[in-house]
Amino acid sequence: MTDPAKHLPSTFQRLGDGTAFVEQIYGMLDRIQLFEDFERAEIRLLGHFLEVYRVPHASEIIREGDAGDYMLLIIEGDVDVFKNDRDGQRKRIAVVGAGKTLGEMSMIDGEPRFSTCIAATEVTFGVLTRDSLSQIIAQQPMLGAKILMELVLMLSQRLRQTSDKLVNFLEQ
Amino acid sequence: MTDPAKHLPSTFQRLGDGTAFVEQIYGMLDRIQLFEDFERAEIRLLGHFLEVYRVPHASEIIREGDAGDYMLLIIEGDVDVFKNDRDGQRKRIAVVGAGKTLGEMSMIDGEPRFSTCIAATEVTFGVLTRDSLSQIIAQQPMLGAKILMELVLMLSQRLRQTSDKLVNFLEQ
Repeated sequence: MTDPAKHLPSTFQRLGDGTAFVEQIYGMLDRIQLFEDFERAEIRLLGHFLEVYRVPHASEIIREGDAGDYMLLIIEGDVDVFKNDRDGQRKRIAVVGAGKTLGEMSMIDGEPRFSTCIAATEVTFGVLTRDSLSQIIAQQPMLGAKILMELVLMLSQRLRQTSDKLVNFLEQ
Repeated sequence: MTDPAKHLPSTFQRLGDGTAFVEQIYGMLDRIQLFEDFERAEIRLLGHFLEVYRVPHASEIIREGDAGDYMLLIIEGDVDVFKNDRDGQRKRIAVVGAGKTLGEMSMIDGEPRFSTCIAATEVTFGVLTRDSLSQIIAQQPMLGAKILMELVLMLSQRLRQTSDKLVNFLEQ
C-alpha cells in the first residue's frame, strides 16, 4: 500500500510498514503536532501508508540540497538539524526528538532539501512519501484533508516564528 | 453557501459571491499561486464559497493582532503589508497585488493577525472564511484537498525564503 521513497538511502534498516507502530505512535500523540487531533482509527489507517526505518547514531538521514520526496516522523531518538549559510558555514539550527517531523517542505514542494539532518542517537522513524500522500488523498479524502490541514497549521506556525525573528533584523 | 466572516469590518462594500468573478479569476490564474493548477470548473465551484468586497484607497483591510477567520484573494488593486518589530516600529514588509493572497495564517491557525494590510489603491478581493473552507472539505473533499495542497505549497515556499534570510543573521 505504501509507495516507496525514490530518494531514501539504501543503508537504512527497514522495519516494515507503520501498522506495527500504531500503538507507539498513538501513545505519543500529544507530542505529535502533525496528528494532534487524530483518532486511533485514523492512525491505524495511516499506518498502512508509512514505512518505518531505523538508523544508527551519526547517520545522515537527509542532506541539504538533495532531492527528496518524503517526510519523516521521528518515533524514537533525536536528530540534529544543520543548515549552511550563504558563506557555506554549517550551523546547527535545531535538535528534534520523538513526535517531530522532518522534510515536509521537500515532500510537498519537490524543491531540494533545505537542511541536513543527522541522527544524534539511534533513530526510528516513519516515512511518508509524496506518492503515498497522493494515494491517501485519492482513497481516503477526509484523512487526506486532515493531514493536509495539520501540515498547513504546522507550516503556518513555523512561518510565524521565523518571520517574527526575521522582522527584528530588518531595516526600517 | 458562503459562511460569513466573523471578523470582517462592516464598512467593506460587499459585491456578492465569487460566481460573478469566475472569469476574472480564471483569467489571472497564472498569477494566482493558490490556484495555479485549477480548472475553470473548480474555480466556478469555489466561486460559490467566496464573498467579494471592494474598499477604497487607504482602507485598513487587516490589523496586526486582531482576530481573523478569513483569508483574502486580491482580484484588483495593491495592498501594503506592515509589521511591528519588537520595539513597536512599523515596517513595510511587502506590497502585494492582484492574484496574491493575504491572511492565510490566521484563517488556518486561528492566531492573531501577523501583519497590518492597507489598501494602496482601490482594492477588490475575494474572502474565504475558515467555515467556508471546512464546508468545501466536507462537501467537495477533492477540491478541499487541492486548496489545502496549494496552501501547504505556498507556505512551504514562503518558509524556505524566510528561513533562508534568517539563517544569514544567526550566530554560529
